[in-house]
Amino acid sequence: MKEKILLKTEFMRLALKEAEKAFTLGEVPVGAVVVQNGEVIASAHNLVESLSDASAHAELLALKAAAEKLGKRRLADCELYVTLEPCAMCMGAILNFRLGALCFGAFDDAAGCTVSRCELGRLTNLNVPFVGGMLEEECKAVLRRFFEQRRG
Amino acid sequence: MKEKILLKTEFMRLALKEAEKAFTLGEVPVGAVVVQNGEVIASAHNLVESLSDASAHAELLALKAAAEKLGKRRLADCELYVTLEPCAMCMGAILNFRLGALCFGAFDDAAGCTVSRCELGRLTNLNVPFVGGMLEEECKAVLRRFFEQRRG
Repeated sequence: MKEKILLKTEFMRLALKEAEKAFTLGEVPVGAVVVQNGEVIASAHNLVESLSDASAHAELLALKAAAEKLGKRRLADCELYVTLEPCAMCMGAILNFRLGALCFGAFDDAAGCTVSRCELGRLTNLNVPFVGGMLEEECKAVLRRFFEQRRG
Repeated sequence: MKEKILLKTEFMRLALKEAEKAFTLGEVPVGAVVVQNGEVIASAHNLVESLSDASAHAELLALKAAAEKLGKRRLADCELYVTLEPCAMCMGAILNFRLGALCFGAFDDAAGCTVSRCELGRLTNLNVPFVGGMLEEECKAVLRRFFEQRRG
């Protein structure tokens, strides 16, 4: 599973493109895509500020769009690619949707609940296979650029 | 804070009414209301099956509705009343919305991430004051009735 996922950096590049869309909107630049059988079925970027909705994270929006498209609430045959390690809410959603696999780019020491801050899968006994650090430098770079610009 | 909240069982009774609506729809009966300055500003019930959306939990729907109504993404002046201890996703959302206070009814040993399975607030350093066990017996009873009927 791990090796297979590690070859699929093209999907993380699409997630990075989504992150750039968020950047343009003045949103914390995080992007996500949902893939089923090698095909992108949903993509989204962070819209928290634009929608005044603290739940409008890239992952949750992408998962909801995928479930709506597929007409089902279990996404065991899908993979999520996201540029930043999911927060508690999004990791919980990933587990609720019974996602098949998760790939994230940058680790989030402050809020990441896949592995950094806590391991929600293990804590809830609803594990999902995951790979962290895919295209990590690119995923970190867009976030760094955003926060530097804000401070500047 | 705790004593003040403990007097407000009328809001938990409204959440129980929402849970009954979910029951009628064949949904796991969980209901939630968001209160601001003693006034209900949003209420919702579980709609996971109806919407084929694993994220359509009562809490998340109520929080999104409250944020939309108030036009802001931080709900520090609001309280959430929910009949069942929030799962990881909903507890994460509660933290993301910076909710002022949380009251839940039944504890959820299997999936509760306020305190039972793990303490997400503490783990992420985004604590929210909470009270668990408000009208616990009534909140458990509606869930028990649902699962007994399903098994029956």
